[in-house]
Amino acid sequence: MQNFDHIAAQLSAVRPGHTLPQSLYISDEAFAFDTQVLLKSLWLYACTTAHVKKPGDWYVFELANNSVIIVRGRDGEIRAFHNTCKHRGARICNEASGNNARLSCPYHFWTYGLDGKLIIARGMPDGFDKADNGLSPVAVENIGGLLFICLADTPPPIDRARADISAEIGMYNLGQLKVAYQADLIDNANWKLVMENNRECYHCESNHPELLQSLDGKGFGKGLPEDNTSGEASQAESAIEAQRAGWRASGLNSEPVEFPDGWWHRVARIGLAEGANSQTLDGKPACDKLIWPHGDDHNTSLSVWTQPNSWHHFCCDHVVSFSVMPLTADKTLVRTSWLVHEDAVADVDYDLDHLTAVWRATNDQDRVLAEMNHAGICSDGYRPGQYSAEEKFVETFKEFYVDNAKSVLNVT
Amino acid sequence: MQNFDHIAAQLSAVRPGHTLPQSLYISDEAFAFDTQVLLKSLWLYACTTAHVKKPGDWYVFELANNSVIIVRGRDGEIRAFHNTCKHRGARICNEASGNNARLSCPYHFWTYGLDGKLIIARGMPDGFDKADNGLSPVAVENIGGLLFICLADTPPPIDRARADISAEIGMYNLGQLKVAYQADLIDNANWKLVMENNRECYHCESNHPELLQSLDGKGFGKGLPEDNTSGEASQAESAIEAQRAGWRASGLNSEPVEFPDGWWHRVARIGLAEGANSQTLDGKPACDKLIWPHGDDHNTSLSVWTQPNSWHHFCCDHVVSFSVMPLTADKTLVRTSWLVHEDAVADVDYDLDHLTAVWRATNDQDRVLAEMNHAGICSDGYRPGQYSAEEKFVETFKEFYVDNAKSVLNVT
Amino acid sequence: MQNFDHIAAQLSAVRPGHTLPQSLYISDEAFAFDTQVLLKSLWLYACTTAHVKKPGDWYVFELANNSVIIVRGRDGEIRAFHNTCKHRGARICNEASGNNARLSCPYHFWTYGLDGKLIIARGMPDGFDKADNGLSPVAVENIGGLLFICLADTPPPIDRARADISAEIGMYNLGQLKVAYQADLIDNANWKLVMENNRECYHCESNHPELLQSLDGKGFGKGLPEDNTSGEASQAESAIEAQRAGWRASGLNSEPVEFPDGWWHRVARIGLAEGANSQTLDGKPACDKLIWPHGDDHNTSLSVWTQPNSWHHFCCDHVVSFSVMPLTADKTLVRTSWLVHEDAVADVDYDLDHLTAVWRATNDQDRVLAEMNHAGICSDGYRPGQYSAEEKFVETFKEFYVDNAKSVLNVT
Repeated sequence: MQNFDHIAAQLSAVRPGHTLPQSLYISDEAFAFDTQVLLKSLWLYACTTAHVKKPGDWYVFELANNSVIIVRGRDGEIRAFHNTCKHRGARICNEASGNNARLSCPYHFWTYGLDGKLIIARGMPDGFDKADNGLSPVAVENIGGLLFICLADTPPPIDRARADISAEIGMYNLGQLKVAYQADLIDNANWKLVMENNRECYHCESNHPELLQSLDGKGFGKGLPEDNTSGEASQAESAIEAQRAGWRASGLNSEPVEFPDGWWHRVARIGLAEGANSQTLDGKPACDKLIWPHGDDHNTSLSVWTQPNSWHHFCCDHVVSFSVMPLTADKTLVRTSWLVHEDAVADVDYDLDHLTAVWRATNDQDRVLAEMNHAGICSDGYRPGQYSAEEKFVETFKEFYVDNAKSVLNVT
Repeated sequence: MQNFDHIAAQLSAVRPGHTLPQSLYISDEAFAFDTQVLLKSLWLYACTTAHVKKPGDWYVFELANNSVIIVRGRDGEIRAFHNTCKHRGARICNEASGNNARLSCPYHFWTYGLDGKLIIARGMPDGFDKADNGLSPVAVENIGGLLFICLADTPPPIDRARADISAEIGMYNLGQLKVAYQADLIDNANWKLVMENNRECYHCESNHPELLQSLDGKGFGKGLPEDNTSGEASQAESAIEAQRAGWRASGLNSEPVEFPDGWWHRVARIGLAEGANSQTLDGKPACDKLIWPHGDDHNTSLSVWTQPNSWHHFCCDHVVSFSVMPLTADKTLVRTSWLVHEDAVADVDYDLDHLTAVWRATNDQDRVLAEMNHAGICSDGYRPGQYSAEEKFVETFKEFYVDNAKSVLNVT
Repeated sequence: MQNFDHIAAQLSAVRPGHTLPQSLYISDEAFAFDTQVLLKSLWLYACTTAHVKKPGDWYVFELANNSVIIVRGRDGEIRAFHNTCKHRGARICNEASGNNARLSCPYHFWTYGLDGKLIIARGMPDGFDKADNGLSPVAVENIGGLLFICLADTPPPIDRARADISAEIGMYNLGQLKVAYQADLIDNANWKLVMENNRECYHCESNHPELLQSLDGKGFGKGLPEDNTSGEASQAESAIEAQRAGWRASGLNSEPVEFPDGWWHRVARIGLAEGANSQTLDGKPACDKLIWPHGDDHNTSLSVWTQPNSWHHFCCDHVVSFSVMPLTADKTLVRTSWLVHEDAVADVDYDLDHLTAVWRATNDQDRVLAEMNHAGICSDGYRPGQYSAEEKFVETFKEFYVDNAKSVLNVT
């Protein structure tokens, strides 16, 4: 392992309630640490089971120099492999996703089964054993339809995240959904700034008009009763409590789970803007075929956020799922997938523009904000600044980063 | 401070009358030294008062990772600040220039007065004091309408440059001018090569046909009596002396000031080509509204050159001002501004094409030359070469660089 | 010299019959070693004499930061010089090729003879001696019309390569050819992967339909009798032996020379596909004016491969010549030149599309393969993999690289 003494020193200098020191955001050294050490020690969100719905479906997850194939086998099992041929190392899957009966390297057509076993390798010398040359596996876990991978040989525990997340998202049955649309956006900003931006809605009011059509910011890092400690918030508090009582009467759990005991997940039912029942421009469902059994009039959606790299919004008619993939110190791939019922037909049951309008606009606004943030932090005038009360989940993300970074570096 | 021992060794190897060693021009280490140490210890030209003419006008100066806002306050004072919000560090001004009543960060709308004081920061926790969170100031000085900034805590003296420059440019009254046009050009060359190129007209004859329409190269690094020491130059010498006598008769000073006593400024009245009274393609003024009180028939312009990053040409009808902003080891931003009388009306008093034709063409020719220079210096075959007599101000620039670099590194 | 201990350690870990360790392919350190040390110690193919056919013709060869002018003098001699002016270092030749009576630097018009002697340098101070300021020479050798340069002060031997190559290519008389077309392609891959890809046809069958129209892969790294050691190959073996007998009857040598005794050249007459007499889409000659004296019905072409950076195909009517020029760790310039008889007239004797179709298509396919190879090797899952029997010349290239690298680093 490279020497990361400077990173360790910076981690020790982090102040509670403040942003990170400059170099942890922008330096190449911090990026090397993040992608070669820290992020390999964690579970990373990759995609949903709907991305690899049928046997032979594969999906590529990228992290800096690494590329991982996630593929469903003929036996229905989902597996993950490093995207590099055992012959001369060529990348095997060269698109974002696809479907093949087998995984063939385009270079010399070495061919692997969907389980990673080497099947064809023409003209190899005596002593070559196909059994020694299967694809290198990567750990993968399925939490209620959300797929997480880990590049470590010994991945950390995942049980509590699995229990908390699957309990809540089960009613949206990801197994019956399909990917209607997927969009890639490259933010010229460090991945941690992309994440910090996602963890608060302090910036929403002036930057996200489309999003606020269906969402008043409640629950996206503010508006929850426990976030409103001041006297002025009592009115909002009772309104929210009334809303929660309504959800409970409909059989919908209303208790948020918020990164408990150092864990890396938050699950919260949130209230939508008045009259809105889905995260769309007009607040109406974007797809006629609903995905849950509770109808389209509950004025709510469910959100899941995971450290260090994902968030997801579950509406009555569709799911939007976001993955963050660090590319370089100042480039991050944000991939957004819109999922609808597998039986829904485009242009009949849903209109793609209507379905995707809010988050296409919002993602691009967030991209600009993250880029301004990265650019400004490069300045000699930058000093770690203080978070507002509405940025408490930014602090949670930052603490997760710092705690795990200290842990892998044995810094106390 | 990073260890710059290799830079120090290279500085000690510099030969009088010769170009710099290769690595001082092209290495990333030299660029880090230049932008993180040397250039922060110097006054840098940024823009004119015409760029921030009215209260609320702001202008952004960039130097590698640094971005500086120069802004005129409601009180008419010009101030400079690091372009980074004290909250989470976002860049506040994201255009090259603009006008606002206040400086608001687009991210979370923290809002600062034009004096840098924090006015609005919503929802901050107890104990947060706005008074501690104003924008970080940068030193700025106004020399007769030319604005210089310094990133050092303790800027070097500026008094003699102020006296010499303001004495000569006063008659062009920058305070009554406006910016008619501004053009950015990125040269794929180290900033020092962009500067060296500017400091001689040895390359003019074969490369700058448009420029030589109104300028025969006299005074741009050659042609002054003191530059012509050989016998053959006596004829040119008497012609120039006659011209100077004419200027003196009209009340125009004719004595150049040339980087006196290690100072960083040159001011020289120069003769234009026969029949030319402005630096335009046809030698005629480009703007009907003159900016000085001496009419349009004096066959002269005034030029100011400053180390390490600017030059300016004052004609009877307009001013052209150039700033050099290092971006990376092989990328430099050259910004050119054309100023005319504030009362002049486009398409009535001046034609923008006519006004800008000479220097748009010349800048692009100089870009190509600087890029060829940089590319060739990368070669293993490069050795420091000798300057000609006409390149004496290139040597002056180089010595300024070397002397100041040695000084900040304590090299003797 | 930079410290290359890590490179030395990697070289010692190389396994016979396997690809190189990851960092030797992709790291910036390995690229610095390759271009600043290893490749400077070797003869590199640059171009043919047809590229500098007439006095004053010049051609630019590039290797990372280095640019070399190859020029034919008034005396007919071919010389090579570093492409950097002795004045201030500007690149002198700024196109890929050209013709000039003298070599003038565009910056200040210092002018050199075609023999590199400085002729014009205006206004230089006393004591300046033109004789000390000629262009810096680079070693150049002509092997039967193929020009090789070496950046070392003391180039390695070249005699055996000269003897073996010139004996075979003489009949195609490069001296009577002209360059009909030249195409540059930039592969986003390390130069060694571009070379490895060239050294086998294991990938041809599924990737190069155009190439295989006239070439069934025989001789391009497979198909030669000595490559077919298994029993199944005996039929192919006798077919090839019959073909060779035919060549011998026509006075064409049939014995391949294959990187003998650690030397860096391979020369082999190969059989074309049935009915094909030139490497074109339809197998017919692309040019009516043949370049050898043996007619157009011999079903053969001759190929020359040199380490570390070239290959050439000699057909009855044209020659295709390829040079590989490393630019960065993951960027390589592949330049392809198509040569025809100097008397051939475009659109009369040859059609440029017909002439170039096969290798334009094949080069682009190879680019994609090399890029997939580079991308995949970046993965943490990459391990050196084993070469197949058909990749024996890839192993030869790799061994050449490793042996020479160890030699310059004194690794045992």
